Amino acid sequence: MLAPVVILVNPQMCENVGMAARAMMNCGVSEMRLVAPRENHLSEKAIAASSGAEKILQAAKVFSSTREAVADLNIVYASTARKRNMIKEVLTAQGAGGEISQKALGGIHAGILFGPERTGLHNDDVALADKIIEIPLNPEHCSLNLSQAVLLVCYEWYKTQAVAPDAQMVTNGAPFVEKEKLYRFFDFLENKLSDCKAFQDDEKHPKMMINLQNIFLRGELTEPELNSLYGVINFLSGH
Amino acid sequence: MLAPVVILVNPQMCENVGMAARAMMNCGVSEMRLVAPRENHLSEKAIAASSGAEKILQAAKVFSSTREAVADLNIVYASTARKRNMIKEVLTAQGAGGEISQKALGGIHAGILFGPERTGLHNDDVALADKIIEIPLNPEHCSLNLSQAVLLVCYEWYKTQAVAPDAQMVTNGAPFVEKEKLYRFFDFLENKLSDCKAFQDDEKHPKMMINLQNIFLRGELTEPELNSLYGVINFLSGH
Repeated sequence: MLAPVVILVNPQMCENVGMAARAMMNCGVSEMRLVAPRENHLSEKAIAASSGAEKILQAAKVFSSTREAVADLNIVYASTARKRNMIKEVLTAQGAGGEISQKALGGIHAGILFGPERTGLHNDDVALADKIIEIPLNPEHCSLNLSQAVLLVCYEWYKTQAVAPDAQMVTNGAPFVEKEKLYRFFDFLENKLSDCKAFQDDEKHPKMMINLQNIFLRGELTEPELNSLYGVINFLSGH
Repeated sequence: MLAPVVILVNPQMCENVGMAARAMMNCGVSEMRLVAPRENHLSEKAIAASSGAEKILQAAKVFSSTREAVADLNIVYASTARKRNMIKEVLTAQGAGGEISQKALGGIHAGILFGPERTGLHNDDVALADKIIEIPLNPEHCSLNLSQAVLLVCYEWYKTQAVAPDAQMVTNGAPFVEKEKLYRFFDFLENKLSDCKAFQDDEKHPKMMINLQNIFLRGELTEPELNSLYGVINFLSGH
């Protein structure tokens, strides 16, 4: 899958370039381009900050203008924190992640511009872009640093590539209990409790049993867990 | 809306605590709890790193154990990077963000545990949690720092609160052109081009006009932009 290119325009501190590379690597985005960086992106500081993403820094190409840096790309997004007085489509990071993926299926190669730390992108650079990315954040306090902005945008792209289910019970290979085995366990439990006071009361008995069943039904039990429950109850009941 | 509580378990460096506060503030999450932090979270370093989120650090409560730190919460998520040998439901950050929001509607107050920088959460702390959050990232290189993990999880929660459309054309108040006005512009353009060579060819003429129309139709033009186009064409055609 064609990943987007991350273009850092006039980054000020080389550590931030390193941290941006780290963020990219976490999200499977590998091509970084730099427009007139103030510091050396291959300095020791930058490499230390990249925390293992040195490869990205070493492969990063340096350009003297934004226009040259995006020359071979098909679509360019400008990541901005503040509103610009321009008529352009504005996407959330999520919207952009989805769109970049979709367009890549049609062979459209995307680049994402990120501006210098203090000021953000200059209007002339935003003007070069097709669209704007604004990350929806707390309007009362929005202060992302460069690598965090890179992280969120790349993360949204990566999510469109990843196939992780939103929620999944992880059993490390233990099989989930088949329902009949669980019902048999309920019978076993009911039998073990037959002498208890509440179970003598014909009205309370079924209600209490249903409550107990629901506890275990909610648990999505695995076979080894069910065996443990048998063990515990046998132990507690003295055989 | 009931925001989740962020619980940092044994954070090592106070700058990371400050940066985590900054990440939280960006996402409208304000309650931080600390379990036995190694350094002072109100040190100058921590406050500088929080970049304006000092309020969160000042309000942060310190506990001596994770168990005490989550005592009043209803559901606890453990954020982990590596697989644990435990049978628990595993959610993505996105899945957890949605679930935390949904549960909050029913009055369920959630906490999210984050472990120390180098090692991540101890198994004993993961065991206290109801569920696990694993952020889907590049399996070949996953190295999030503490504040980045806090950022991604809080961001996913914040997105469930925000109502930003995924994509939106921003015109800064300029009205979009009504279709009839655009069609009249097409007529005007066709008229201006009537003498050009391709328009003399009866086969090419309609095809070319449709191509030109499509360029402007894709543009989602505003009224001032349409006026500019009239101006440009009038200028080019010499009156």
